[in-house]
Amino acid sequence: MIKAGIIGSTGYAGAELVRLLLQHPEAEIVWYGSRSYTGQKYADIYRNMFQIVDADCLGDDLDELAKQADVIFTATPQGFCASVIGDGILENTKVIDLSADFRLKRVDVYEQWYHLTHKAPSYIKEAVYGLCEINRDKIAGARLIANPGCYTTTSILTLYPLVREGLIDLKSIIVDAKSGTSGAGRGAKVPNLFCEVNESIKPYGVTTHRHTPEIEEQLSYAAGLDYMGGESILINFTPHLVPMNRGILATCYASLKEGVSEERIGEAYQKYYGNETFIRLLGAGQFPETRWVEGSNFVDIGYKVDPRTGRVIAVGALDNLVKGAAGQAVQNMNILFGLPEDTGLKLVPVFP
Amino acid sequence: MIKAGIIGSTGYAGAELVRLLLQHPEAEIVWYGSRSYTGQKYADIYRNMFQIVDADCLGDDLDELAKQADVIFTATPQGFCASVIGDGILENTKVIDLSADFRLKRVDVYEQWYHLTHKAPSYIKEAVYGLCEINRDKIAGARLIANPGCYTTTSILTLYPLVREGLIDLKSIIVDAKSGTSGAGRGAKVPNLFCEVNESIKPYGVTTHRHTPEIEEQLSYAAGLDYMGGESILINFTPHLVPMNRGILATCYASLKEGVSEERIGEAYQKYYGNETFIRLLGAGQFPETRWVEGSNFVDIGYKVDPRTGRVIAVGALDNLVKGAAGQAVQNMNILFGLPEDTGLKLVPVFP
Amino acid sequence: MIKAGIIGSTGYAGAELVRLLLQHPEAEIVWYGSRSYTGQKYADIYRNMFQIVDADCLGDDLDELAKQADVIFTATPQGFCASVIGDGILENTKVIDLSADFRLKRVDVYEQWYHLTHKAPSYIKEAVYGLCEINRDKIAGARLIANPGCYTTTSILTLYPLVREGLIDLKSIIVDAKSGTSGAGRGAKVPNLFCEVNESIKPYGVTTHRHTPEIEEQLSYAAGLDYMGGESILINFTPHLVPMNRGILATCYASLKEGVSEERIGEAYQKYYGNETFIRLLGAGQFPETRWVEGSNFVDIGYKVDPRTGRVIAVGALDNLVKGAAGQAVQNMNILFGLPEDTGLKLVPVFP
Amino acid sequence: MIKAGIIGSTGYAGAELVRLLLQHPEAEIVWYGSRSYTGQKYADIYRNMFQIVDADCLGDDLDELAKQADVIFTATPQGFCASVIGDGILENTKVIDLSADFRLKRVDVYEQWYHLTHKAPSYIKEAVYGLCEINRDKIAGARLIANPGCYTTTSILTLYPLVREGLIDLKSIIVDAKSGTSGAGRGAKVPNLFCEVNESIKPYGVTTHRHTPEIEEQLSYAAGLDYMGGESILINFTPHLVPMNRGILATCYASLKEGVSEERIGEAYQKYYGNETFIRLLGAGQFPETRWVEGSNFVDIGYKVDPRTGRVIAVGALDNLVKGAAGQAVQNMNILFGLPEDTGLKLVPVFP
Repeated sequence: MIKAGIIGSTGYAGAELVRLLLQHPEAEIVWYGSRSYTGQKYADIYRNMFQIVDADCLGDDLDELAKQADVIFTATPQGFCASVIGDGILENTKVIDLSADFRLKRVDVYEQWYHLTHKAPSYIKEAVYGLCEINRDKIAGARLIANPGCYTTTSILTLYPLVREGLIDLKSIIVDAKSGTSGAGRGAKVPNLFCEVNESIKPYGVTTHRHTPEIEEQLSYAAGLDYMGGESILINFTPHLVPMNRGILATCYASLKEGVSEERIGEAYQKYYGNETFIRLLGAGQFPETRWVEGSNFVDIGYKVDPRTGRVIAVGALDNLVKGAAGQAVQNMNILFGLPEDTGLKLVPVFP
Repeated sequence: MIKAGIIGSTGYAGAELVRLLLQHPEAEIVWYGSRSYTGQKYADIYRNMFQIVDADCLGDDLDELAKQADVIFTATPQGFCASVIGDGILENTKVIDLSADFRLKRVDVYEQWYHLTHKAPSYIKEAVYGLCEINRDKIAGARLIANPGCYTTTSILTLYPLVREGLIDLKSIIVDAKSGTSGAGRGAKVPNLFCEVNESIKPYGVTTHRHTPEIEEQLSYAAGLDYMGGESILINFTPHLVPMNRGILATCYASLKEGVSEERIGEAYQKYYGNETFIRLLGAGQFPETRWVEGSNFVDIGYKVDPRTGRVIAVGALDNLVKGAAGQAVQNMNILFGLPEDTGLKLVPVFP
Repeated sequence: MIKAGIIGSTGYAGAELVRLLLQHPEAEIVWYGSRSYTGQKYADIYRNMFQIVDADCLGDDLDELAKQADVIFTATPQGFCASVIGDGILENTKVIDLSADFRLKRVDVYEQWYHLTHKAPSYIKEAVYGLCEINRDKIAGARLIANPGCYTTTSILTLYPLVREGLIDLKSIIVDAKSGTSGAGRGAKVPNLFCEVNESIKPYGVTTHRHTPEIEEQLSYAAGLDYMGGESILINFTPHLVPMNRGILATCYASLKEGVSEERIGEAYQKYYGNETFIRLLGAGQFPETRWVEGSNFVDIGYKVDPRTGRVIAVGALDNLVKGAAGQAVQNMNILFGLPEDTGLKLVPVFP
Repeated sequence: MIKAGIIGSTGYAGAELVRLLLQHPEAEIVWYGSRSYTGQKYADIYRNMFQIVDADCLGDDLDELAKQADVIFTATPQGFCASVIGDGILENTKVIDLSADFRLKRVDVYEQWYHLTHKAPSYIKEAVYGLCEINRDKIAGARLIANPGCYTTTSILTLYPLVREGLIDLKSIIVDAKSGTSGAGRGAKVPNLFCEVNESIKPYGVTTHRHTPEIEEQLSYAAGLDYMGGESILINFTPHLVPMNRGILATCYASLKEGVSEERIGEAYQKYYGNETFIRLLGAGQFPETRWVEGSNFVDIGYKVDPRTGRVIAVGALDNLVKGAAGQAVQNMNILFGLPEDTGLKLVPVFP
């Protein structure tokens, strides 16, 4: 059994990690970390866990935890993981960081978009970006995994084959994304109150959302650009808040290169994802809906070419708490420990 | 492996059966029946099942199905199961009926509340009411199970210990229940449209809802009344439609008999449910919320005595599609086939 | 034009007062009070008011406000109005208090249920309980109005004719109420976050909710009991939180006195409400839904007698922010200033 | 008083017309037409109208209606208005058609996108496209108004100043739109059931939605193109269904022409909308949310320039049933009859 510790187990992503690990046949949770609720019973904070989890919430002493755990998940605010990471920890345990601390390879980009000074730049190079379908091989031998963001997982996976195969104009990419409200976290803020979110939709972080450079960096690699040398795809990324608990939908627009057909698009998706367990290709003219992936680790992708405008519209959907956070983290854990990638993740989507 | 056939697999309860059986380690689905969608791919009707279920929808030929299946689930409208049941089928296979056809022992009561002529009254006596926590022993040897209704499971389980132990005035029982909209089924009707249900709550079936006599009958047995001889507890049962997908909450009111304390109430719950896997007793003054049981087979129960009025308020909550329908049906299947009762049902509630 | 000041204009009830007064032909708002947002533009807090309200939020200096305003609405937490009220204010202006400070005539009951020491007990006697349909005459000449609570308005209006006419057993009353989430206010608390409320229903304040004694007191008057002398109806009142913005539904149960027919019930409602503008009697067997009153000042009431149990089930519905708070406050203002009671309140319910 | 008749008064847009006209000081409704509910009481279909509307639903005899009414609103499916319109009617009365029959000037485009043969092509030229802020002058003298679609009103008003002033690349326009579910109408269809829409977001009509050519035509006029001669802007328009009752948000993307600054964008909006009653300009970097316009006739517009990509992101929001349908129809009526444009439309947005 893999011994797993969770720092930040009382946020929504952390709680989803708890749900998934409890149902994982090869893992057990040895540490429910929660700065806000240290000392309280975990099941008092998440009453769905009544009579399932008996543990109390512990603090965030990573050195102690590293002695007990084979893997540590940090489902914490930006900056935390970078402030505590160190060789002492990494020699004892694997770390899967669900925050953005190690997602961006360029410190300057991190500091510009996150308005934070990076506390552990020396570990950035070592960290592997944990987008399983793309980076599987690198993940296998890593000590420190940067688990991708929810919007970014959706956006990158939707666009990757098109960029990788050189089918679209790299200057033309627009991602219009929509997210359920669990993505905003469990912090007590007026804008996240029921009456403020319900019966409304709004854009936010327009041109400034932090997932933008993460998408740009990964797509730049796919395009073969010298990202570290300063080359980069630039995109427009606009997230919207939707009155639902879970789900992300990314509607992606790009201009096709001369002569690229819808069939060619389909072949590209097939080439990269045809054998993937967690990516379901809906085919041309079929589009995903978040309800069909809820509670599961699937990403559903559909697309269509508009001959009138010469653009492809590709749409991806996933559950932001599963494939967009905790599910992908478990998938990374499975790779790290040599388990079949879908261990504990054969979750049938819950509907309605 | 238990071979299972589902008649009515494209209703919400049927689809939930599919979800649960797909994740059940000892069962496989051999028949996806659907009168409305015969011949179509199941995954085209429920796109969450894309690349999970490859089968087409079949019709409702129970004789043929009985040859192939060890157990048949009928998740069909009232009247269907009674119109097709017969010895030929029951000699070959177990039948678990999710409709009301065999829930009521008195034909006259069935016909009065359902406004239907019962087509198979001779099988009523044989049928076992599949409320697992109460009728476990009888279920084990049965051929035909009447799977309880969603409101009734919640209401009966919440009130059973109080009635059985003689703690409350049997004439004083009121059940005010609230249900998510999946309970109304997938029929295309104006009152179930999003804009009609959203942002509203309404009572319906006031004094006439068909789950009323089902609750009354089972509680009458618990009270030791001669129900078949004409004795019966009479209750007020008022269901309400709530703008959410899943969940039932039953708020039950009853006058305490002289001298009954809150402690005594707690002991009664402990006596009957203390060892139950799927009933979680929250204790005095703690009340359930439907979000904490969503997606799981749990029933959460809390209670409180009001010394001012001499009443106990007991509240139960469950997921209407799981413990209120498909989950309990699988639990019944497990009992019928000698499996541990929680096989395939160790579902951690999904939140948020 | 009536000059109106609002203390607590940035809570949901206060904001609804703003909306109603802006559309009132005989009133204008001269003071947008808000302790939390003093100095900020009102339209920055409520962006629906952009280009409609140009004012900044002011503080809560009631003495100063009393000089400017003909009427002051206090949409403030319990205890505030009692702590500032005084003759200086009441000689200059009318006060309509939307909190509970002056709703209960017995200080001991107030202090017991609210766990507060009452700061102005000498004004309790003078204050008039502003349930317009019942207390219209007393309201007309008052200086200080205690605007009723949302649950209480629904519950009392639904039960009043039955109690007043002596048709029901006074010991048998149970009110099972359901409310939209705006009733919980705009405070930033985890239990009111979108993901915590959405897709769930829960009871709260079981046997302890503060609207209980308010309902009991008013119904005791209706029954002709010597409430101040210690006589009182006692009821069970159980509120539930529903995932919707607005609306209250109160499902009321009571045992009928010997020989009382459904027809007699109908006559009683007709007698007291037959000419009321804002009470819509749906008749026997017809029940209200909150969607049909949303945005309006209506209370819809329906009922049914259950001959099996001898009970009447009466259900009332209103919009908690309108007839349950701001609308009734404006109705009180209209009475105080001799205007037709429906001035500014001829609001057609908004659906969907 | 203007005598108004409504054909299709029991759809959501028709019902909103009823709500608005009931509160309009200069109009009265003389005909509640409804093919589906002819002969039934209107208030039985829309119970919010109980004791407000006493009329029965009538049929769709436009000749008879034209004798009684000064203005007829057709809130009917595509094809109806074209099939009944004629000089006899137009000589007696004004017609405001809320369907698409007369919105597109080119019959071939209409027939291509709507898959219908146009029944009255000779009236297309006469019809005036009723986008009030743009076509006010032409509307004033018209007999037949083509009331714009909900998505189109949002999209055109958001983009118009940018196109008109030549600030953006006409080949670069993408509109990613999101709508509440009332836009899907009141037809009883499975995809519009509560459980199908709730907790999900989906794109639909990708590259084929019928509002596309309507937006293209109007923007082509703004750009000075010879639309009838075959010139046209081509855009990508992607609508999404959002789990809320009302509201449309259109997120528009376009590449700026060389040297166009954010300031210049702001000036353009100011130039065309600075004096408009119903368009609220939020300014640079401020974005609309549908909750802030709900129940009102406002369109809120915000924008931002992204210097990294050279694009402007402009976002518009309105209530699809008001400014997107019934409100704009009433605004058109006001213009037709020489009333101040905001008569009966000074609606403060309802929040929450």
